[in-house]
Amino acid sequence: MDLTKEARTIVQTARRGALATLMGEACDPYASLVSTVVGADMLPLLLLSALSQHAQNLAGDPRASLLLESTAVATAPDALAAGRVTLQGIVEPADKDALREMYLAAHPEAEMYYPFTDFHLYRLNAPRLHFVAGFGRVVWLEMGMLS
Amino acid sequence: MDLTKEARTIVQTARRGALATLMGEACDPYASLVSTVVGADMLPLLLLSALSQHAQNLAGDPRASLLLESTAVATAPDALAAGRVTLQGIVEPADKDALREMYLAAHPEAEMYYPFTDFHLYRLNAPRLHFVAGFGRVVWLEMGMLS
Repeated sequence: MDLTKEARTIVQTARRGALATLMGEACDPYASLVSTVVGADMLPLLLLSALSQHAQNLAGDPRASLLLESTAVATAPDALAAGRVTLQGIVEPADKDALREMYLAAHPEAEMYYPFTDFHLYRLNAPRLHFVAGFGRVVWLEMGMLS
Repeated sequence: MDLTKEARTIVQTARRGALATLMGEACDPYASLVSTVVGADMLPLLLLSALSQHAQNLAGDPRASLLLESTAVATAPDALAAGRVTLQGIVEPADKDALREMYLAAHPEAEMYYPFTDFHLYRLNAPRLHFVAGFGRVVWLEMGMLS
Protein backbone atom coordinates (compact mmCIF):
# COMPACT_ATOMS: atom_id res chain seq x y z
CA MET A 1 0.00 0.00 0.00
CA ASP A 2 1.12 3.52 -0.76
CA LEU A 3 2.86 4.97 2.31
CA THR A 4 1.62 8.51 1.69
CA LYS A 5 -1.98 7.26 1.52
CA GLU A 6 -1.58 5.24 4.72
CA ALA A 7 -0.13 8.24 6.56
CA ARG A 8 -2.93 10.49 5.30
CA THR A 9 -5.58 8.07 6.56
CA ILE A 10 -4.04 8.05 10.06
CA VAL A 11 -3.81 11.87 10.18
CA GLN A 12 -7.39 12.28 8.95
CA THR A 13 -9.03 9.75 11.25
CA ALA A 14 -7.17 10.28 14.54
CA ARG A 15 -9.29 11.88 17.28
CA ARG A 16 -6.70 11.76 20.03
CA GLY A 17 -2.94 11.64 20.26
CA ALA A 18 0.09 11.94 22.49
CA LEU A 19 1.71 15.35 22.58
CA ALA A 20 5.39 15.85 23.38
CA THR A 21 6.27 19.30 24.70
CA LEU A 22 9.23 20.89 26.50
CA MET A 23 8.84 21.61 30.21
CA GLY A 24 10.58 24.28 32.28
CA GLU A 25 13.92 25.97 31.82
CA ALA A 26 15.68 22.62 31.42
CA CYS A 27 13.38 21.76 28.50
CA ASP A 28 12.56 18.33 29.93
CA PRO A 29 10.39 16.26 27.59
CA TYR A 30 6.76 15.90 28.70
CA ALA A 31 4.24 13.49 27.13
CA SER A 32 0.51 14.05 27.51
CA LEU A 33 -2.87 13.04 26.11
CA VAL A 34 -4.74 15.40 23.77
CA SER A 35 -7.90 15.33 21.73
CA THR A 36 -7.39 16.36 18.12
CA VAL A 37 -8.84 16.63 14.64
CA VAL A 38 -7.21 17.84 11.42
CA GLY A 39 -8.57 20.76 9.47
CA ALA A 40 -8.81 21.05 5.69
CA ASP A 41 -5.12 22.02 5.70
CA MET A 42 -4.28 18.59 7.23
CA LEU A 43 -2.86 20.29 10.33
CA PRO A 44 -4.07 19.05 13.75
CA LEU A 45 -6.17 21.28 15.98
CA LEU A 46 -5.77 21.08 19.76
CA LEU A 47 -8.15 22.45 22.41
CA LEU A 48 -6.09 23.03 25.54
CA SER A 49 -6.84 24.51 28.94
CA ALA A 50 -4.46 27.29 29.94
CA LEU A 51 -4.29 25.55 33.32
CA SER A 52 -2.86 22.34 31.84
CA GLN A 53 0.80 21.43 32.01
CA HIS A 54 1.18 21.07 28.22
CA ALA A 55 -0.34 24.54 27.62
CA GLN A 56 2.08 26.01 30.15
CA ASN A 57 4.95 24.19 28.42
CA LEU A 58 3.90 25.57 25.03
CA ALA A 59 3.72 29.10 26.45
CA GLY A 60 7.42 28.73 27.25
CA ASP A 61 8.42 26.94 24.02
CA PRO A 62 5.96 26.40 21.15
CA ARG A 63 7.74 23.35 19.71
CA ALA A 64 5.74 20.14 19.89
CA SER A 65 5.41 16.68 18.44
CA LEU A 66 2.18 14.74 18.08
CA LEU A 67 1.89 10.96 17.87
CA LEU A 68 -1.20 9.73 16.02
CA GLU A 69 -1.92 6.00 15.92
CA SER A 70 -3.82 3.99 13.36
CA THR A 71 -6.74 2.07 14.80
CA ALA A 72 -4.66 -1.10 14.21
CA VAL A 73 -2.33 -0.18 17.10
CA ALA A 74 -5.03 -1.00 19.65
CA THR A 75 -5.91 -4.39 18.16
CA ALA A 76 -2.77 -5.75 16.47
CA PRO A 77 -1.06 -8.73 18.16
CA ASP A 78 2.04 -6.52 18.16
CA ALA A 79 1.23 -2.81 18.42
CA LEU A 80 4.67 -2.00 17.02
CA ALA A 81 3.77 -3.69 13.74
CA ALA A 82 0.91 -1.20 13.19
CA GLY A 83 1.16 2.23 11.62
CA ARG A 84 1.64 5.49 13.49
CA VAL A 85 2.62 9.00 12.57
CA THR A 86 4.78 11.52 14.42
CA LEU A 87 4.27 15.16 13.45
CA GLN A 88 6.83 17.77 14.45
CA GLY A 89 6.38 21.50 14.38
CA ILE A 90 5.28 24.65 16.15
CA VAL A 91 2.00 25.13 18.01
CA GLU A 92 0.24 28.36 17.02
CA PRO A 93 -3.04 30.00 18.11
CA ALA A 94 -6.05 29.07 15.94
CA ASP A 95 -9.36 30.89 15.52
CA LYS A 96 -11.57 29.31 18.19
CA ASP A 97 -14.80 30.95 17.02
CA ALA A 98 -14.33 30.24 13.31
CA LEU A 99 -13.37 26.61 13.89
CA ARG A 100 -15.98 25.86 16.56
CA GLU A 101 -18.40 23.94 14.35
CA MET A 102 -15.66 21.93 12.70
CA TYR A 103 -14.03 20.99 16.01
CA LEU A 104 -17.27 20.06 17.75
CA ALA A 105 -18.39 17.91 14.82
CA ALA A 106 -15.39 15.72 15.62
CA HIS A 107 -15.62 16.20 19.40
CA PRO A 108 -19.26 16.67 20.46
CA GLU A 109 -18.23 15.72 24.02
CA ALA A 110 -16.32 19.03 24.24
CA GLU A 111 -19.38 21.22 23.65
CA MET A 112 -19.79 22.04 27.34
CA TYR A 113 -16.26 23.30 27.92
CA TYR A 114 -15.43 24.60 24.42
CA PRO A 115 -16.66 28.13 25.32
CA PHE A 116 -14.70 28.29 28.60
CA THR A 117 -12.36 31.28 28.46
CA ASP A 118 -9.41 29.26 29.78
CA PHE A 119 -9.69 26.87 26.82
CA HIS A 120 -7.79 27.96 23.72
CA LEU A 121 -7.62 26.39 20.27
CA TYR A 122 -4.22 25.74 18.71
CA ARG A 123 -2.91 24.41 15.42
CA LEU A 124 0.20 22.25 15.14
CA ASN A 125 2.01 23.79 12.19
CA ALA A 126 4.05 20.73 11.28
CA PRO A 127 6.10 20.89 8.07
CA ARG A 128 6.92 17.21 8.21
CA LEU A 129 5.95 13.91 9.73
CA HIS A 130 7.69 10.68 10.57
CA PHE A 131 5.67 7.69 9.43
CA VAL A 132 6.42 4.36 11.08
CA ALA A 133 4.35 1.87 9.11
CA GLY A 134 5.79 -1.13 10.94
CA PHE A 135 9.14 -2.82 11.46
CA GLY A 136 11.65 -1.41 8.99
CA ARG A 137 9.00 0.63 7.15
CA VAL A 138 9.97 4.11 8.29
CA VAL A 139 9.98 7.30 6.26
CA TRP A 140 10.01 11.06 6.75
CA LEU A 141 7.35 12.79 4.62
CA GLU A 142 6.70 16.45 3.84
CA MET A 143 3.23 17.45 5.04
CA GLY A 144 2.51 18.88 1.59
CA MET A 145 2.64 15.34 0.20
CA LEU A 146 -0.54 14.48 2.12
CA SER A 147 -2.70 17.15 0.51
CA MET B 1 -10.95 6.55 44.75
CA ASP B 2 -7.46 6.96 46.10
CA LEU B 3 -5.34 8.79 43.50
CA THR B 4 -2.17 6.87 44.34
CA LYS B 5 -3.98 3.55 43.87
CA GLU B 6 -5.45 4.68 40.55
CA ALA B 7 -2.02 5.78 39.28
CA ARG B 8 -0.46 2.49 40.40
CA THR B 9 -3.07 0.50 38.49
CA ILE B 10 -2.35 2.41 35.28
CA VAL B 11 1.42 1.99 35.64
CA GLN B 12 1.08 -1.74 36.40
CA THR B 13 -1.33 -2.61 33.60
CA ALA B 14 -0.04 -0.50 30.68
CA ARG B 15 1.57 -2.52 27.90
CA ARG B 16 2.26 0.37 25.54
CA GLY B 17 2.78 4.07 25.85
CA ALA B 18 3.86 7.24 24.10
CA LEU B 19 7.47 8.23 24.64
CA ALA B 20 8.64 11.84 24.43
CA THR B 21 12.34 12.26 23.66
CA LEU B 22 14.61 15.07 22.50
CA MET B 23 15.79 15.02 18.88
CA GLY B 24 18.95 16.49 17.42
CA GLU B 25 21.07 19.41 18.53
CA ALA B 26 18.01 21.68 18.77
CA CYS B 27 16.40 19.22 21.21
CA ASP B 28 13.11 19.19 19.30
CA PRO B 29 10.43 17.16 21.06
CA TYR B 30 9.65 13.81 19.41
CA ALA B 31 6.69 11.58 20.30
CA SER B 32 6.69 7.87 19.49
CA LEU B 33 4.97 4.59 20.27
CA VAL B 34 6.66 2.06 22.58
CA SER B 35 5.80 -1.26 24.14
CA THR B 36 6.38 -1.37 27.87
CA VAL B 37 5.92 -3.24 31.13
CA VAL B 38 6.90 -2.24 34.64
CA GLY B 39 9.27 -4.33 36.72
CA ALA B 40 8.96 -5.06 40.45
CA ASP B 41 10.50 -1.61 41.06
CA MET B 42 7.50 0.00 39.28
CA LEU B 43 9.82 1.45 36.63
CA PRO B 44 8.91 0.89 32.96
CA LEU B 45 11.07 -1.30 30.73
CA LEU B 46 11.46 -0.42 27.05
CA LEU B 47 12.79 -2.68 24.28
CA LEU B 48 14.13 -0.39 21.56
CA SER B 49 15.93 -0.99 18.29
CA ALA B 50 19.16 0.98 17.98
CA LEU B 51 17.96 1.85 14.47
CA SER B 52 14.85 3.64 15.74
CA GLN B 53 14.58 7.41 15.97
CA HIS B 54 13.77 7.38 19.70
CA ALA B 55 16.82 5.23 20.51
CA GLN B 56 19.00 7.63 18.53
CA ASN B 57 17.43 10.55 20.40
CA LEU B 58 18.14 8.88 23.76
CA ALA B 59 21.76 8.25 22.76
CA GLY B 60 22.09 12.03 22.45
CA ASP B 61 20.05 12.94 25.54
CA PRO B 62 18.72 10.28 27.96
CA ARG B 63 15.82 12.39 29.26
CA ALA B 64 12.39 11.02 28.43
CA SER B 65 8.75 11.14 29.40
CA LEU B 66 6.30 8.27 29.06
CA LEU B 67 2.53 8.63 28.78
CA LEU B 68 0.58 5.60 30.03
CA GLU B 69 -3.19 5.53 29.57
CA SER B 70 -5.80 3.73 31.60
CA THR B 71 -7.95 1.39 29.55
CA ALA B 72 -10.78 3.90 30.05
CA VAL B 73 -9.14 6.37 27.65
CA ALA B 74 -10.01 4.18 24.66
CA THR B 75 -13.66 3.74 25.61
CA ALA B 76 -14.72 6.86 27.55
CA PRO B 77 -17.12 9.25 25.77
CA ASP B 78 -14.47 11.90 26.47
CA ALA B 79 -10.94 10.47 26.53
CA LEU B 80 -9.78 13.53 28.47
CA ALA B 81 -12.04 12.56 31.39
CA ALA B 82 -10.16 9.27 31.82
CA GLY B 83 -6.97 8.70 33.79
CA ARG B 84 -3.46 8.81 32.40
CA VAL B 85 0.00 9.05 33.85
CA THR B 86 3.06 10.94 32.64
CA LEU B 87 6.39 9.70 33.95
CA GLN B 88 9.49 11.85 33.63
CA GLY B 89 13.06 10.74 34.09
CA ILE B 90 16.21 9.32 32.57
CA VAL B 91 16.41 6.26 30.33
CA GLU B 92 19.14 3.85 31.45
CA PRO B 93 20.37 0.49 30.11
CA ALA B 94 18.68 -2.54 31.70
CA ASP B 95 19.88 -6.16 31.87
CA LYS B 96 18.36 -7.71 28.75
CA ASP B 97 19.28 -11.31 29.64
CA ALA B 98 18.14 -11.16 33.27
CA LEU B 99 14.82 -9.52 32.40
CA ARG B 100 14.07 -11.62 29.32
CA GLU B 101 11.48 -13.90 30.93
CA MET B 102 9.72 -11.07 32.71
CA TYR B 103 9.53 -8.92 29.56
CA LEU B 104 8.35 -11.72 27.29
CA ALA B 105 5.66 -12.79 29.76
CA ALA B 106 4.11 -9.37 29.13
CA HIS B 107 5.07 -9.21 25.44
CA PRO B 108 5.11 -12.72 23.95
CA GLU B 109 4.86 -11.14 20.48
CA ALA B 110 8.42 -9.84 20.93
CA GLU B 111 9.99 -13.28 21.33
CA MET B 112 11.22 -13.39 17.74
CA TYR B 113 13.11 -10.09 17.83
CA TYR B 114 14.03 -9.92 21.53
CA PRO B 115 17.40 -11.65 20.89
CA PHE B 116 18.34 -9.37 17.96
CA THR B 117 21.59 -7.63 18.77
CA ASP B 118 20.29 -4.23 17.66
CA PHE B 119 17.49 -4.42 20.25
CA HIS B 120 18.42 -3.13 23.70
CA LEU B 121 16.44 -3.11 26.92
CA TYR B 122 16.12 0.15 28.85
CA ARG B 123 14.57 1.27 32.12
CA LEU B 124 12.91 4.66 32.56
CA ASN B 125 14.29 5.81 35.90
CA ALA B 126 11.49 8.23 36.74
CA PRO B 127 11.54 9.82 40.19
CA ARG B 128 8.08 11.31 39.74
CA LEU B 129 4.92 11.11 37.71
CA HIS B 130 2.17 13.49 36.74
CA PHE B 131 -1.24 11.89 37.24
CA VAL B 132 -4.14 13.40 35.32
CA ALA B 133 -7.18 11.59 36.68
CA GLY B 134 -9.63 13.74 34.72
CA PHE B 135 -10.66 17.38 34.48
CA GLY B 136 -9.23 19.28 37.44
CA ARG B 137 -7.92 16.11 39.10
CA VAL B 138 -4.21 16.59 38.51
CA VAL B 139 -1.37 15.80 40.88
CA TRP B 140 2.38 15.22 40.86
CA LEU B 141 3.33 12.05 42.78
CA GLU B 142 6.69 10.70 43.89
CA MET B 143 7.30 7.27 42.34
CA GLY B 144 8.09 5.91 45.82
CA MET B 145 4.46 6.50 46.76
CA LEU B 146 3.37 3.78 44.31
CA SER B 147 5.42 1.00 45.91
